[in-house]
Amino acid sequence: MKQATLQVEGMSCNHCVNSIEKAIKELGAEGKVNLSGKTVTVDYDESKLTIETIKEAIEDQGYDVV
Amino acid sequence: MKQATLQVEGMSCNHCVNSIEKAIKELGAEGKVNLSGKTVTVDYDESKLTIETIKEAIEDQGYDVV
Ligand SMILES: [Cu+2]
Ligand SMILES: [Cu+2]
Repeated sequence: MKQATLQVEGMSCNHCVNSIEKAIKELGAEGKVNLSGKTVTVDYDESKLTIETIKEAIEDQGYDVV
Repeated sequence: MKQATLQVEGMSCNHCVNSIEKAIKELGAEGKVNLSGKTVTVDYDESKLTIETIKEAIEDQGYDVV
């Protein structure tokens, strides 16, 4: 398991938190949003998933990964 | 049909817009959120619905009607 923290712009409310954490969960990983810190911390299995795939999933929800 | 515009605090993104407009639609009325103006304009049938019921539906979504 690997942990990465991404800087993400555009998250403003709990709906945003839910949509991002859900999208990450659907990839089989675990995401934790810090709204005020503008970060998403992800625990994932790097043998199954790349950080690029996770970034794309977040961007697909309408947010910018810095 | 009557139209009313409410000042609403706490709306920050399109998820907020959707949740409020959906809650109003479920009452049988039509709501339009202006995010930057922090307003919700509602068209409703005052023979079927009171503005108090609409305010409660918005507050139930987690927002403050001023
Ligand atoms: Cu949001
Ligand atoms: Cu929102």
